[in-house]
Amino acid sequence: MKELLPPGVQVQGEMGIAFVIAGPSGVGKSSVISTLLSRDPKLCFSVSATTRVRRPDEIHGRDYYFVTEEEFDRLIATGALLEWTTYQGHRYGTPKSEVLGRLQRGLDVVLKVEVRGAQTIRRAGLGFPVVLIFLVPPSWEELVRRVRSRGTESEEALAERLRIAREELQHIPEFDYLVVNDELSRAVAGVEAIIQAERMKILRCA
Amino acid sequence: MKELLPPGVQVQGEMGIAFVIAGPSGVGKSSVISTLLSRDPKLCFSVSATTRVRRPDEIHGRDYYFVTEEEFDRLIATGALLEWTTYQGHRYGTPKSEVLGRLQRGLDVVLKVEVRGAQTIRRAGLGFPVVLIFLVPPSWEELVRRVRSRGTESEEALAERLRIAREELQHIPEFDYLVVNDELSRAVAGVEAIIQAERMKILRCA
Repeated sequence: MKELLPPGVQVQGEMGIAFVIAGPSGVGKSSVISTLLSRDPKLCFSVSATTRVRRPDEIHGRDYYFVTEEEFDRLIATGALLEWTTYQGHRYGTPKSEVLGRLQRGLDVVLKVEVRGAQTIRRAGLGFPVVLIFLVPPSWEELVRRVRSRGTESEEALAERLRIAREELQHIPEFDYLVVNDELSRAVAGVEAIIQAERMKILRCA
Repeated sequence: MKELLPPGVQVQGEMGIAFVIAGPSGVGKSSVISTLLSRDPKLCFSVSATTRVRRPDEIHGRDYYFVTEEEFDRLIATGALLEWTTYQGHRYGTPKSEVLGRLQRGLDVVLKVEVRGAQTIRRAGLGFPVVLIFLVPPSWEELVRRVRSRGTESEEALAERLRIAREELQHIPEFDYLVVNDELSRAVAGVEAIIQAERMKILRCA
């Protein structure tokens, strides 16, 4: 097929693409991402660093790198993070080492990022395409239900999560795509369509 | 879900979208389009007008409106066409009536257009999103094989089709997406992914 393209033209899928998935707490980012990864061998997950406490079902190095405040300070000081944000008093950041090498090898990277961190990834000037996907629940009531059913937190922490979620929705216009997570399989199919379409985009190189 | 969007923000799928499918003769545009239409009730086909002779398997009003040179002149003169081009001595055009009303009713319209006409659709200022999809064969050899196997034309006409195809490939950079038609089901899945992704695009209205 390449022989048919005029000089200086390529499809985006020939290079690595960063797919950034964000959305309010409880919307189901982790479930969507783990299903995506299990179905597409070209996708890698960028494991974030965080200072928050590990939940019982989480594994260090798979879900997050759980680090101390001092270790996080060092990541920032050594320029090891692409972006970082604070959420409910804990810090979350994207290690460059999780992203750049893979993109350079032509793999696509999925990043789970706080809403306010997503734009920073785009502005970081990676030199690779960055696609910003916002995951929303089908309704506000459903979001409240999902955050509650997680049941790991105090009422105050829940109320704070919902307050932050309201604020996060205001950032939707900064994203490229909106995917509704009403049912996991449909949300996954939506993100897969975006990934497939972005790989077919025509790029005019310099 | 709409309640969750900030004011002035919508997803592109709330409005009608024009999906323009072009590509060299013989690449399989008609097969891809008829499969798409059979699977997605939100898609309508824009039937083009042409002055060329009807092929045995074609139906007036389904595949094309087959019109005389005088009728085509009248369509141009009355401003009834969104775009028109000449291909191998015959004229092909897109009637406005096939496109605008449907987009206004929120339906998506699939247009099969000559390569040189695709850009004209975008420049026409429809007031609706226009997505340009270029369909290519997996290789040049395969294109030659497909054009030959149609077997309705003289050797000179075939050679002319191939010469035009070479020139059409130079227009790929004007398109948004490249879909390889190696196998019909895969090409259809590719276009369906593009359609689904475009419907999820976030639009910031004025």
